[in-house]
Amino acid sequence: MEERHMNVVPGLAGIPAAESAVSFIDGEKGILEYRGINISVLAEKSDFLEVSYLLVFGHLPTAEEYRKFKEDITFHTRLKLKILRMMEDLPESGHPMDYLQAVVSAMGMYYPARNTLDPELRYWSVVRLIAKLPTIVAATNRLRRGDAPIPPNNDLSFAANFYYMIFEKEPDPVMEKIIDVILILHADHTMNASTFSSRVVGSTLADPYTIVSSAIGTLSGPLHGGANERVIKMLKDIGTVDKARPYIEDKIARKDKIMGIGHRVYKTKDPRAVLLQKYAHQLFSHEHSKNVEILEIAEEVEKVVEEKLSSKGLYANVDFYSGIVFQALGIPPELFTPIFALGRVSGWLAHWEEQLRTNRIYRPTQNYIGKREQSYVPVDKR
Amino acid sequence: MEERHMNVVPGLAGIPAAESAVSFIDGEKGILEYRGINISVLAEKSDFLEVSYLLVFGHLPTAEEYRKFKEDITFHTRLKLKILRMMEDLPESGHPMDYLQAVVSAMGMYYPARNTLDPELRYWSVVRLIAKLPTIVAATNRLRRGDAPIPPNNDLSFAANFYYMIFEKEPDPVMEKIIDVILILHADHTMNASTFSSRVVGSTLADPYTIVSSAIGTLSGPLHGGANERVIKMLKDIGTVDKARPYIEDKIARKDKIMGIGHRVYKTKDPRAVLLQKYAHQLFSHEHSKNVEILEIAEEVEKVVEEKLSSKGLYANVDFYSGIVFQALGIPPELFTPIFALGRVSGWLAHWEEQLRTNRIYRPTQNYIGKREQSYVPVDKR
Repeated sequence: MEERHMNVVPGLAGIPAAESAVSFIDGEKGILEYRGINISVLAEKSDFLEVSYLLVFGHLPTAEEYRKFKEDITFHTRLKLKILRMMEDLPESGHPMDYLQAVVSAMGMYYPARNTLDPELRYWSVVRLIAKLPTIVAATNRLRRGDAPIPPNNDLSFAANFYYMIFEKEPDPVMEKIIDVILILHADHTMNASTFSSRVVGSTLADPYTIVSSAIGTLSGPLHGGANERVIKMLKDIGTVDKARPYIEDKIARKDKIMGIGHRVYKTKDPRAVLLQKYAHQLFSHEHSKNVEILEIAEEVEKVVEEKLSSKGLYANVDFYSGIVFQALGIPPELFTPIFALGRVSGWLAHWEEQLRTNRIYRPTQNYIGKREQSYVPVDKR
Repeated sequence: MEERHMNVVPGLAGIPAAESAVSFIDGEKGILEYRGINISVLAEKSDFLEVSYLLVFGHLPTAEEYRKFKEDITFHTRLKLKILRMMEDLPESGHPMDYLQAVVSAMGMYYPARNTLDPELRYWSVVRLIAKLPTIVAATNRLRRGDAPIPPNNDLSFAANFYYMIFEKEPDPVMEKIIDVILILHADHTMNASTFSSRVVGSTLADPYTIVSSAIGTLSGPLHGGANERVIKMLKDIGTVDKARPYIEDKIARKDKIMGIGHRVYKTKDPRAVLLQKYAHQLFSHEHSKNVEILEIAEEVEKVVEEKLSSKGLYANVDFYSGIVFQALGIPPELFTPIFALGRVSGWLAHWEEQLRTNRIYRPTQNYIGKREQSYVPVDKR
């Protein structure tokens, strides 16, 4: 094989894998933009379905485009009877991310979309994947408890329906808005591991269910998703506000990693953490919420971290506050990463659409470091 | 985000993504080695389970290691009752690659292996994945026809048992050897798209079922797997030996792609094609085989291609002869790519093991080419 004799860059860090116009990060200033629009503005003024449209199709929808997209998604939230039956046969002890990966693979079998060059098939794949992922996650949560899934309620908004399918009651407007904002804030984040994975799989012209299933698998890895579960665990370990400072000072002295602190690309506070902190306050000042102390502990932790570590560019990231918000909403920890996936699917699909436009199969090389021309030693001589 | 201002190399072609000691290709000389041992020698003297051990663990097993590995695999070929039930709920119209991806994801839920740093868990994941993939593929083939799956027969060899689960009869020794050789020849091939995908997913420390499920998804893409199905279609289109020359000369004149001809890394005949051609002759000279004309057509096509295209480095690749062999064995075309996966799983697992040793999460960057600082235009102004 022709080798270019380049050195391997571990994790391909710093190597650009694609030209992209989906999202942009200014890590110094703490800015995240989707298609050039600041996420703070989108979180305030838009909603997750409009943001999904923006990411996948590259522009804010017109009133008619938005109406159609929303209607198409609303009327594709149901799961096939046989998909539900298949889910009933999965082990209740399984992790919801494994359910999600398996069910998305299986779901694709009902919606052949192998000709990924047909824009009509791509549109309906985008609609079905965004529409059905919340139903799968909510049904998983019910089935794992031995309960029957709650069918989607198409009279509710996308965010409210997700809450309804988990709790069998509607959220109030504050909760509904926060769920929607969480989905917006997780929808894309430039070239992370699962997004890269969806581009690699997509570059073979695999169908979109296969691509999303693989991206879900990538997100299930503990080095990618799941940090917010570990933040909650840490805050519970700390227990009370007065114990936060000694706990964190001790961690810093021992150079331990502090969960939810620091990010590869942000050298200031993650803009998603800024927004989630604001919404966490709204949620905790609200009649439905309890256990406000966890937010107070978190803010004390952040204060100590800023005193001691901001000179090193270490600040709270999105995971630091998302777990707290989920917890306040009553969402069980094992659903945190699946909910990340409900938002991120729009980014995966946007990168897939972009990849197909100038596609070339991802096939990097390797630098061979093994032996050559070894003989086959018979088993009795080994 | 800090950008290194490198240009994007489409598909990362020529960029080394890892140092690897699993397999080596000399594209000029037409040599493929696994752990330094020439595949021609392995095809002749070894068997697929020994080759799998060699790839995954880096050395040929001792007699005791081989005995244990073979026994462990032989006694883990069964599928869980609930996995079989779940498979019954999948649509018969689904592609076997989609079955395989969905079932492997689901299977992982029964064998928690999230702590991928535990070598004992890794060993049993390797055993289970190699052992159960043939059972899934064979059961899929039966279920799609409305037939009950045939349980594995642990008295048979790995290759013979696969044949038995498809046809409910044992293969003769010639067929058994050829099935084994096909698995050996597909077991690894340096850094192809699905292998790269398994490294990307594995780098997040996702569990091995998730990794293999994602790699199967990558292999399902028409730019990666499936070329041998298209070779068979071409040979059938040609129909008779005398039509091969005008058909191919016409293709060459119109600069059409000829299926199964040419390979990114081989500038001579693919060594796997050399071996499969030899075994195809054995198979066709054999009492069980019929329709030898397809081999004669293939060899006539290859002769014309060599006359006209060898100066351009275009020769037969593995897909050119593997479809013919499968066809002669009576294996339906939609199983060709799944059987590729049965062999390649050993390579995916070998690269996963290697990746974990010096792991860093794959997180390349992007070059942003979109707009900045766009305003959010209200819907009535769009």
